[in-house]
Amino acid sequence: MSILIKDVLVDGSLTSIYIEGNRIAAIGGKARVEADTVIDGKQKAAIPGFVNTHTHAAMTLLRSYADDLPLQEWLEKAIWPREAKIEPQDIYWGTKLACLEMIKGGTTAFNDMYFHMEHAARAVKEMGLRAVLSEGFIDLRDPDMGEQLLKKQTSTIRKIEGTGTDRIKAALGPHAIYTVSRESLQAIKELSDAKGYPVHLHLAETRREVEDCVSTQGMRPVKYLESLGLLSRQLLAAHCCWLEPEEIDLLARGGVRVSHCPVSNMKLGSGAMPYRSLREAGVLVSLGTDGPASNNNLDMLESMKFAALLQKFANADPTVLPAAEVVEMATLGGARALGIDSGLLEEGRLADVILIDLRRPELNPLHDLKSLLVFSAHGNVVDTVICDGQVLMRARKVPGEAEIVRKASEAGRDLASRE
Amino acid sequence: MSILIKDVLVDGSLTSIYIEGNRIAAIGGKARVEADTVIDGKQKAAIPGFVNTHTHAAMTLLRSYADDLPLQEWLEKAIWPREAKIEPQDIYWGTKLACLEMIKGGTTAFNDMYFHMEHAARAVKEMGLRAVLSEGFIDLRDPDMGEQLLKKQTSTIRKIEGTGTDRIKAALGPHAIYTVSRESLQAIKELSDAKGYPVHLHLAETRREVEDCVSTQGMRPVKYLESLGLLSRQLLAAHCCWLEPEEIDLLARGGVRVSHCPVSNMKLGSGAMPYRSLREAGVLVSLGTDGPASNNNLDMLESMKFAALLQKFANADPTVLPAAEVVEMATLGGARALGIDSGLLEEGRLADVILIDLRRPELNPLHDLKSLLVFSAHGNVVDTVICDGQVLMRARKVPGEAEIVRKASEAGRDLASRE
Repeated sequence: MSILIKDVLVDGSLTSIYIEGNRIAAIGGKARVEADTVIDGKQKAAIPGFVNTHTHAAMTLLRSYADDLPLQEWLEKAIWPREAKIEPQDIYWGTKLACLEMIKGGTTAFNDMYFHMEHAARAVKEMGLRAVLSEGFIDLRDPDMGEQLLKKQTSTIRKIEGTGTDRIKAALGPHAIYTVSRESLQAIKELSDAKGYPVHLHLAETRREVEDCVSTQGMRPVKYLESLGLLSRQLLAAHCCWLEPEEIDLLARGGVRVSHCPVSNMKLGSGAMPYRSLREAGVLVSLGTDGPASNNNLDMLESMKFAALLQKFANADPTVLPAAEVVEMATLGGARALGIDSGLLEEGRLADVILIDLRRPELNPLHDLKSLLVFSAHGNVVDTVICDGQVLMRARKVPGEAEIVRKASEAGRDLASRE
Repeated sequence: MSILIKDVLVDGSLTSIYIEGNRIAAIGGKARVEADTVIDGKQKAAIPGFVNTHTHAAMTLLRSYADDLPLQEWLEKAIWPREAKIEPQDIYWGTKLACLEMIKGGTTAFNDMYFHMEHAARAVKEMGLRAVLSEGFIDLRDPDMGEQLLKKQTSTIRKIEGTGTDRIKAALGPHAIYTVSRESLQAIKELSDAKGYPVHLHLAETRREVEDCVSTQGMRPVKYLESLGLLSRQLLAAHCCWLEPEEIDLLARGGVRVSHCPVSNMKLGSGAMPYRSLREAGVLVSLGTDGPASNNNLDMLESMKFAALLQKFANADPTVLPAAEVVEMATLGGARALGIDSGLLEEGRLADVILIDLRRPELNPLHDLKSLLVFSAHGNVVDTVICDGQVLMRARKVPGEAEIVRKASEAGRDLASRE
């Protein structure tokens, strides 16, 4: 199978991209004149697909179910009671809807944590995206419950790996230091070391998490994770709003990957990740939407604008986090964070490529494409999505869209009213 | 001329809307079964068109021309030198592109300040939107220059009014207290009083503006405007980020209308308007995108999300500015601010109505439409736009779109390289 994208804008020049199998085989002069599929790239720009490094995809089902509430009330009275009623089939349809939305916004890979994840894996496999999937692990700091859950983690990982596609990887998903016991965190670390599984958790999201950690563990969250040996290149930590300089150094030295979720952090009033200090320390920062109940969409281009503007606002400095850095954060940064060989358009990389429709009013005039992407565009500017060498969307059409929207909506409505 | 929208969702119920001439003639049972134009409203929701109360539409031409710069450098080295080269025909095409973009995002009325505004008026008239247009007045605090410019204001107003459509009104456009002399501000106040023209200016946008005002005038900006007699229901003040409680009281007592521009305020690192205090004081707050060089789009749905999230973040409280208040700010609030009898779907109101496509993935499941609009949607969810009883967009198609994009892009590229 081969794809040829002809006459497309790449980094400001018109060229062609030739894809063979699941890799970019040639760009420019060396690109072939024929292929199994030929795509006209005129008035389009090719860029790498976006990588969303923190979400809870199936929470599409609870999108708009409860907003504008205090965090604890939102969790305890709205989200958790509904999540207690979620069934495996809900996860399948909620993840299908999320994948559809991600494809329509140019996302080709994502890092997901939720429940019944073997059903998320089935949805991702069908939709053609890449994902790293982790079963959310919450033992409410009860080590006995943790032991049971650890067996579940292992069995779910086996099922996820059983989907048998390189596009899907499994990870361990300890939810956060305040919902998982020390013993379970230690066991997860051992499992990660033994089997090489990445670890995905929420970290230093709210000021309260930090205060609770100091009062229960006698140290701040990053220091606590260090004491458990969890700071490593295997760890992807979402949020990281509340960090002291010493903690930033620890994250940098450990090689921890940080997922910045500006929309969620603003919507829940959590705080602003110290981007500049993390970047200066050399920490790999990527971008996440967070789940659709706290965002409420999965639009990476929107999150890119929020990332840039939140940093400019929080630092009272319009030069912080310029457009080019945001684009890198959402593409190469995410790919590196998830260990995917994509994020750049160059020969030999995985063929995760999207085409931007340059005829859109809000993308004109074209003085600077990266500025337009970050400050003007939303997911709707994406015309074509190729992931792993397969065309998932063309001219904004995704096969089966109407049925996915209908089935997921039914599941969401049913979940909202389930006794 | 009549329009019937059948089987459409209005405030959660399926109904029909009948439009006769430029007004909503009936909603529900009383709606006719026939009309000159019948629109199928199935799987769509009708809401009032958005009102953008602060922009500089023709700055579409400079979209993505310069971003991520310190404010003074951005103005002095990028924007002002280009604006000095702007010609009337640029304004026409820049405003056409802006109108196209606004229509595609569901905006039916806007408040605009820029230059050569008779050419903006021509563009608005052709595109079918409503607008309040003001010629930007900057005398650099030189009263002699001010006298010349005042003649220009009067002559431009006459030309704007000469377009001969009720959809377009003229206003006076003193740019800001730091760019306009005291004498000119006084003359503008007198002209406004004598002729009833609204006044549109930037106010308390940056901390520096406040500090400069205190040092040159011996008082803060709002107090200074009060001393000139400018605080009235005729005044629409954009930004208002830096207000002391006493100033908020003065704005409330004067009946001043405030346009909140969260995207611009974040992008330029200006500050956060004190929404809660303004609302508690009873000030009418509406929503603006600001010009496309400091946003960089004209998408009111995006600005609605930024408004909500900026307030939640700045107050560290997710309950501030909930979805329903944001929707009202962007519709009825704006209509009231501009003195337009729209902003609500009810019999007798002007027929400025938009239809939302509920089949979009990001608008499902539909637990709460206002939450979806504010937190999930962008302008692309708008399917149909009716303004003043005329259909401007149907199924996302606007007549002449490709030519407008092409001509405006040419003008923008030419402007960027003009010697």
